[in-house]
Amino acid sequence: MSAVLSEPVTPSATTGRALREGAFGNARALSCRECGHQVDLGPQYACPECFGPLEVAYDFPAVTREQIEAGPRNIWRYKALLPVPTDIEESPNTEPGFTRLLRAHNLGDKLGIDRLWVKDDSTNPTHSFKDRVVACALSAARELGATTFACPSTGNLANAVAAAGARAGIRTVVFIPSNLERPKQINSAVYTEQLVAVNGNYDDVNRLASEIAGEEEGWAFVNVNVRPFYAEGSKTLGYEIAEQLGWRLPDQVVIPVASGSQLTKVDKAFQELIALGLVEAKPYKIYGAQASGCSPVATAFKDGVDAIRPVKPDTIAKSLAIGNPADGIYVLDICRRSGGTVEDVSDDEVRDGIVLLARTEGIFTETAGGTTVGVLKKLVESGQLDPTLETVVINTGMGLKTIDAVADRVGPAATIDPSYAAFAATNL
Amino acid sequence: MSAVLSEPVTPSATTGRALREGAFGNARALSCRECGHQVDLGPQYACPECFGPLEVAYDFPAVTREQIEAGPRNIWRYKALLPVPTDIEESPNTEPGFTRLLRAHNLGDKLGIDRLWVKDDSTNPTHSFKDRVVACALSAARELGATTFACPSTGNLANAVAAAGARAGIRTVVFIPSNLERPKQINSAVYTEQLVAVNGNYDDVNRLASEIAGEEEGWAFVNVNVRPFYAEGSKTLGYEIAEQLGWRLPDQVVIPVASGSQLTKVDKAFQELIALGLVEAKPYKIYGAQASGCSPVATAFKDGVDAIRPVKPDTIAKSLAIGNPADGIYVLDICRRSGGTVEDVSDDEVRDGIVLLARTEGIFTETAGGTTVGVLKKLVESGQLDPTLETVVINTGMGLKTIDAVADRVGPAATIDPSYAAFAATNL
Repeated sequence: MSAVLSEPVTPSATTGRALREGAFGNARALSCRECGHQVDLGPQYACPECFGPLEVAYDFPAVTREQIEAGPRNIWRYKALLPVPTDIEESPNTEPGFTRLLRAHNLGDKLGIDRLWVKDDSTNPTHSFKDRVVACALSAARELGATTFACPSTGNLANAVAAAGARAGIRTVVFIPSNLERPKQINSAVYTEQLVAVNGNYDDVNRLASEIAGEEEGWAFVNVNVRPFYAEGSKTLGYEIAEQLGWRLPDQVVIPVASGSQLTKVDKAFQELIALGLVEAKPYKIYGAQASGCSPVATAFKDGVDAIRPVKPDTIAKSLAIGNPADGIYVLDICRRSGGTVEDVSDDEVRDGIVLLARTEGIFTETAGGTTVGVLKKLVESGQLDPTLETVVINTGMGLKTIDAVADRVGPAATIDPSYAAFAATNL
Repeated sequence: MSAVLSEPVTPSATTGRALREGAFGNARALSCRECGHQVDLGPQYACPECFGPLEVAYDFPAVTREQIEAGPRNIWRYKALLPVPTDIEESPNTEPGFTRLLRAHNLGDKLGIDRLWVKDDSTNPTHSFKDRVVACALSAARELGATTFACPSTGNLANAVAAAGARAGIRTVVFIPSNLERPKQINSAVYTEQLVAVNGNYDDVNRLASEIAGEEEGWAFVNVNVRPFYAEGSKTLGYEIAEQLGWRLPDQVVIPVASGSQLTKVDKAFQELIALGLVEAKPYKIYGAQASGCSPVATAFKDGVDAIRPVKPDTIAKSLAIGNPADGIYVLDICRRSGGTVEDVSDDEVRDGIVLLARTEGIFTETAGGTTVGVLKKLVESGQLDPTLETVVINTGMGLKTIDAVADRVGPAATIDPSYAAFAATNL
């Protein structure tokens, strides 16, 4: 980590520039999730006392539904609940969020679920939920005076960072494994001249990123030294679900688990809405979804243990393939406490999930979404999820990014000559 | 055309089912754009008197900004201005529209335009503006009692129809050329079991579609026999631009031209908003954008003639490659009358346009968008567009669908070993 950007210093020391008033909105400190120790808001992610993960803590003022509803049709309508300044809309950003919450009658009928909704984040600016978290990381980078915006990534995160950095006009460097498929390289390279291919796997790229963060000054790595701010962006998924349901919480939510951050933040969002009186308090169950080829959290859940045993990922759901998930233990805690579970499905079930969602609701999802839909199906069939309760399933991204997953599953029903007789003979 | 679906019959005769009250909202007739002859609302697209194109005509009630603003965050907020029933939100559809209108400071700076906006339709459900028109066609198909929803297409339209049909639970058949690249096939096949590959080019596929429409009953081909309803969906682009600017019209708009329908409908939308008192009347200029490899409208504009001479398309901008554009003459009329122009750019300029938009505004557009941005640049440089006036450029789709266009243009700046020393040596 950067000597300047990551040590437990006062934020104003970050780049020698004083933080402006309200740089982080109603956020008041970074608080250790393990020991509760608090430090000033700044580019840190590990507790100086116990090395536990730091999380943004707030002093919320009174916030009303009307204030939120009068805001822009993107995540900044919730700016009072995020670590961003009140003038965040003035700074160029990709304006993500407020994506569709679709009533999924067809999928519900197929699975036997009475009231099912799909929260569809494939319609975000770079077509995944990562635009939400990156927008919050960008704001932190800007307020902290960072001069370079960066990430190591193999996919959605790289796209989101490269796009947000371009629009913000900040120098942006994205690190990818050099063996990444060419279309995925292009999908980030189109936004930035500073795409760096690294000979090695994702772990090597990640290590290099940390090394650079430790040597260079003024770098904001979205998922490293500004991670606490970044992670808060996922709360907006929870806020939007509640608002779009008419300011109430669903009974059950199914969420994919990679690092586990998204699931914990949706829970945090629900709790905040209750505490602020924006929704009525009620019980809700949260379920985690993993691919069997990388299911350390599901395994721990089923084994009834509190510790996550890291695994070596082997699944087509690459965007969920984190073998040692940082927030895994918190996912376990939330799912157990809320009465949910953590389940996993095979790669074949992932593929089935993609086709099922497309053919029932017209949403072409990526492998992460196929995992979540596959797990939803398994949860119903195994009696873990109550089909009579209102349920929301989150789709985090879009299918064109992982199109190979279904290449052998779907295709033309017939290939014909261009005549009516030829068509009639198909009996379609 | 189908004997049942396309003759000038009363709509109730379409499938033997009576039309319900308000099936088409405030629409009152189909009116011939050439001779003004009117026929009842139904599955027709050509004037029975002169074979001119039929267009939806309305009796609008008073409509207020407040009514619109209280509507859903998709195209149905404008349902009073579309040929759809008042309960349209109740019928499963993809809920497209109300996409981002981004203030494009960086692109404006690069091109020397003071106030530039990008209307970004790449965030629609299937990532192009086609979701708007298909949603209107779907409503018409439903109200007319069609039992099959269909289209011939090579790209965006196929995706939009297959997705909308799946979500609506209507039998959907999509016809594509059999030599279409595999990823494009998958991107439609994932939504429907009835994808039909046809040995031939797009013209062959189109002819087959018309033949089938003439032989089969109950088919709604979105861009054939329900085309007048379909085309109205493009008006929502114009409504949204005006509403998102704070209920006023821009001074200049640059719009891609394939059939030319979208451009004419944005103009129609602006005129309707003025007539309804929803925006102040003011002059605005409309510009058409084509790729030089298929630029029959730009050629006619520059030659100062009224007739379009059909061309054989040869451009990477496949979604604009209509050699004989149905609405070309109306595009000429609108651009001339409004003081705009129709311009075209080379395939290399299209590629440049894609990279320029991505690197300035973080939007990865398809070749059609690259064409529009390329033309915008050319319009400024050639003095055809006034850089001191407020300008909107429309992005109709997303870059992953035409990723090959920039495959040779962008890529990693460096490929390095996973060490800080290797990174430092790049001087990035």
